[in-house]
Amino acid sequence: MKTPVTVLGLGAMGTALARAFLAAGHPTTVWNRTPGRSPELDDLGATRATSVAEAVQAAPLVIACLLDYASVHTTLAPLDADTSLLRGKILVNLTNGTPAQARSTGEWAQRHGAQYLDGGIMAVPAMIGGPAAFVLYSGAPDAFERHQTTLAAIAKTTYVGSDPGLAALHDLALLSGMYGMFGGAAQALALVSSEKVSPTAFTAGLLIPWLTAMLGSITGIANDLEYGAEPGAAGSNLAMQAIGFVNLLDASVAQGVDPALLVPMGELLDRAVAEGHGDEDLAVTVRLLQEANQQAN
Amino acid sequence: MKTPVTVLGLGAMGTALARAFLAAGHPTTVWNRTPGRSPELDDLGATRATSVAEAVQAAPLVIACLLDYASVHTTLAPLDADTSLLRGKILVNLTNGTPAQARSTGEWAQRHGAQYLDGGIMAVPAMIGGPAAFVLYSGAPDAFERHQTTLAAIAKTTYVGSDPGLAALHDLALLSGMYGMFGGAAQALALVSSEKVSPTAFTAGLLIPWLTAMLGSITGIANDLEYGAEPGAAGSNLAMQAIGFVNLLDASVAQGVDPALLVPMGELLDRAVAEGHGDEDLAVTVRLLQEANQQAN
Repeated sequence: MKTPVTVLGLGAMGTALARAFLAAGHPTTVWNRTPGRSPELDDLGATRATSVAEAVQAAPLVIACLLDYASVHTTLAPLDADTSLLRGKILVNLTNGTPAQARSTGEWAQRHGAQYLDGGIMAVPAMIGGPAAFVLYSGAPDAFERHQTTLAAIAKTTYVGSDPGLAALHDLALLSGMYGMFGGAAQALALVSSEKVSPTAFTAGLLIPWLTAMLGSITGIANDLEYGAEPGAAGSNLAMQAIGFVNLLDASVAQGVDPALLVPMGELLDRAVAEGHGDEDLAVTVRLLQEANQQAN
Repeated sequence: MKTPVTVLGLGAMGTALARAFLAAGHPTTVWNRTPGRSPELDDLGATRATSVAEAVQAAPLVIACLLDYASVHTTLAPLDADTSLLRGKILVNLTNGTPAQARSTGEWAQRHGAQYLDGGIMAVPAMIGGPAAFVLYSGAPDAFERHQTTLAAIAKTTYVGSDPGLAALHDLALLSGMYGMFGGAAQALALVSSEKVSPTAFTAGLLIPWLTAMLGSITGIANDLEYGAEPGAAGSNLAMQAIGFVNLLDASVAQGVDPALLVPMGELLDRAVAEGHGDEDLAVTVRLLQEANQQAN
């Protein structure tokens, strides 16, 4: 028999997870705060638990996928009444949150004698069970290794370290990178649309190939960050980029396009130059983002 | 004999262009405001013109690559004294500027009986003549067709339309997209570095593959923009994204990383939801960027 699993929380994502486990043949117990949610799971063979305590007893692998950490605390609170309920279990928390929240929940699980894995789902519900989805995991290495195959039923698994906070950290970093890229793309599309250029032709013919080519520069930035850079090695230093950036903002306004998404990068470049980093490259912007709050804290 | 060319302006980029033309065997005449700039070009066989008038008479194809449009005006002003100097020539202006500046220079060239091509160089000087560089061109279609092979000596050529402003427009759009992506990457790298994760391992193993996968969503945004979207079709609507975005900003602060680069995207998502677009997708952000200044103008 395949490993039984329990899914706590039947929002859109939790429901997708339960469907994927059922489709892969895992006996699946589900629980949701509001009973009867996602009735299609009954037809697929899910078992409904009437309490969280009942749900966690039904399987060695307990997946929590809740709205936020407030919901995690409310949901898991009944288990504090009997700390034997989670003993020997593996709690896999796929709720979105911060590294600190993940670590704190990991400590709570440990106090209950459970192993803890935290996860960041890099997919929308419709992608679960498909080839493009992946989930970042961090926490108990042996628990991950033992249940990797079961977890692969929902998405490709990527283990990022034994510190339970690391999955959330990587998740946040990837989403930040994605939103930066989407913001740049929105700005680009607003600019070409200001002159009735076809957004799809521009995207397929120029924007995607260009961004793909520029991905290599991100590798360069990471290298400089880790190993240090020779000033000016990038061939286009921050001082030159800061000057060009002003033109970029002005031209956007001239085209009737709000430059708001680009403004903070311009300010960051200006600050880098003002603080004497004009002959360095974009790795400096990463350091400034870190320093800003080191000063504030 | 290969087509003779003239290069006006020997900054880092103009010098790289002249070198590439010389390397490809084109008789190359150069002019620079400050004489004697880039002496290595003499050894490579460049001819120095002592005036702009002399320079433009030396070749049918005149490339201008100057600091900015103020320099373009100063440089070309002497030609107003004799409007026959440019007659029948092709002026290729590779100076960075706005679509409006390109169009205005195109009209000036036409008044001088010259054909006009405007260009946006998508490369740093070190890339000129290499396989990764490309130049966007717009303007006189027959001039482009006739000299495409010559222009290919400096970089791959991409023609984007007969309106001379279009190369600058596409250039600005691509740079905006690039800086958005770099900003997102800087934020991502600052976040993982806040916990001593290796920036290079993160970039190679997760960030680049993730951004590559997410490029497909840009195609989706462009499609929605051009053809309209079914609300909610993207599977992750703006209302959900706006809520998640607040967590993203808070988590960044909790990690000691300045969220400044992401803040305007959060504001844009909030505005989209407040204006009733909560069930739509990111194409809405493109429209909001355009509307903002339509209201301001």
